[in-house]
Amino acid sequence: MTIIDGKAVAADIKQQIAKEVEQIVNAGGKRPHLAAILVGHDGGSETYVNNKVKACEVCGFKSTLVRFENTVSEEELLNKVKELNNDDDVDGFIVQLPLPKHISEQKVIETIDYRKDVDGFHPINVGRLSIGLPCYISATPNGIMDLLSYYKIETSGKKCVVLGRSNIVGKPMATLMARKAYPGDCTVTICHSHTKNIKEECLQADIIIAALGQPEFLTADMVKEGAVIIDVGTTRVPCASRKSGFKLTGDVKFDEVAPKCSYISPVPGGVGPMTICSLMRNTLLAGKKEFYK
Amino acid sequence: MTIIDGKAVAADIKQQIAKEVEQIVNAGGKRPHLAAILVGHDGGSETYVNNKVKACEVCGFKSTLVRFENTVSEEELLNKVKELNNDDDVDGFIVQLPLPKHISEQKVIETIDYRKDVDGFHPINVGRLSIGLPCYISATPNGIMDLLSYYKIETSGKKCVVLGRSNIVGKPMATLMARKAYPGDCTVTICHSHTKNIKEECLQADIIIAALGQPEFLTADMVKEGAVIIDVGTTRVPCASRKSGFKLTGDVKFDEVAPKCSYISPVPGGVGPMTICSLMRNTLLAGKKEFYK
Repeated sequence: MTIIDGKAVAADIKQQIAKEVEQIVNAGGKRPHLAAILVGHDGGSETYVNNKVKACEVCGFKSTLVRFENTVSEEELLNKVKELNNDDDVDGFIVQLPLPKHISEQKVIETIDYRKDVDGFHPINVGRLSIGLPCYISATPNGIMDLLSYYKIETSGKKCVVLGRSNIVGKPMATLMARKAYPGDCTVTICHSHTKNIKEECLQADIIIAALGQPEFLTADMVKEGAVIIDVGTTRVPCASRKSGFKLTGDVKFDEVAPKCSYISPVPGGVGPMTICSLMRNTLLAGKKEFYK
Repeated sequence: MTIIDGKAVAADIKQQIAKEVEQIVNAGGKRPHLAAILVGHDGGSETYVNNKVKACEVCGFKSTLVRFENTVSEEELLNKVKELNNDDDVDGFIVQLPLPKHISEQKVIETIDYRKDVDGFHPINVGRLSIGLPCYISATPNGIMDLLSYYKIETSGKKCVVLGRSNIVGKPMATLMARKAYPGDCTVTICHSHTKNIKEECLQADIIIAALGQPEFLTADMVKEGAVIIDVGTTRVPCASRKSGFKLTGDVKFDEVAPKCSYISPVPGGVGPMTICSLMRNTLLAGKKEFYK
């Protein structure tokens, strides 16, 4: 059994990115520039955005953080988005979600120029992913694909069960695992709240991608011997013994499932570190104008 | 066992559309206008486009047919697309595929204004379908959803196997059957050329949507008693005894599979007639500016 080390893979990929950035800059090219818009002072969002800014430094990117108070109007935010769309120095940018309730997240996402949409949330990027055209793939699915290929995990013809049908994980994961490519070419089953016999579905799977957001949902009796388990869950479960007051808990009962697996990604330290890494690569691709002119 | 009568359902839906169009026109509204671009003289394409024009008459739409010879340049075709994009009288339009090899189909599709893309092929419409936002859904998947709801076929919690992962049928079908809605809420498995044990997958299915394009692929031994079978295959198999020289053949061995089913769609007369009907409804929705202003 191999524990997938997302932290190590992410560090390795970031180093590769940094190397490529230096080559670009040394050859007289432009240093990739990522901007991030952060609204309000939510603890989780602050942490995510800070980590993204730090990762930019590691990769040798220029980064810009634009902050708004929670009281910002939708119009003001959209104007900033349009400004970044038109700023030739900014290669890609993100608007950290969630946003205050008086602002339509969908409207914000659709206002971002898809050519700078390094989060891969714009319908054009989602559609291009579905059709199989080059595009920005969103961070979590992209990171999972990186883990599978880093560990050279066989996928062709394998049965893959995706638990969850969210827009940011379940659906794109199913698309990617079923595509005609490596990693991919799996027979993919999408399970969700309406699925009957979810245990039987999981028991047939060679690869399970658990993205339900239900702490320790996947137990040993649901997993076939030798399966590959990717845990996308990140629920904050209250924990008195920790300074933070919570424990980041995955969708997999790690201790009992791990011994049955060929590969398993832990929480934390599995998929999590890969997501920022995906954003960094999308930014590099944006800087190189790889997909769009 | 019920044989799904696509011809009757399509006729019924077209009548409903015609009724609504008359109401709109009587109330002083604009008659919906569909334009179609046809390049060359391919027999199949001619037939499809003619049928679309006829269906427009039945629905009370205005229709315009724009013809080009096979020698038309990509630029010339794209200019016509742009002209239709800007023509306020045209609510929606299609470019009949396939196109001659010197023209990029993808470029043509992406040049169509997504607000007039009643074929639902533009990445924005594909992406919005995936995210679950209102959009033009492409004809075949849309027609299948209509058949399921017309016959009030239960889907929630059912196991649905989609055979095929094409952009125009397999992928959108999987998305629609897995979505949180009716028809939908199925546990969906996507099978394709790399799938092992396709028979075992099919035997578990309550609903099978066969879109492989392999004549009579699905045989009785692959189907569970009481299953719902939707046959999307339309392969022209040579047939000496027919005037046309061919027989339109589905992916399902109808005679042996039908007795085991609760519902089955035949070929021809099942999904086929529904596709034009979907295009008509998308045109009505375009005329009403239902999704986009």
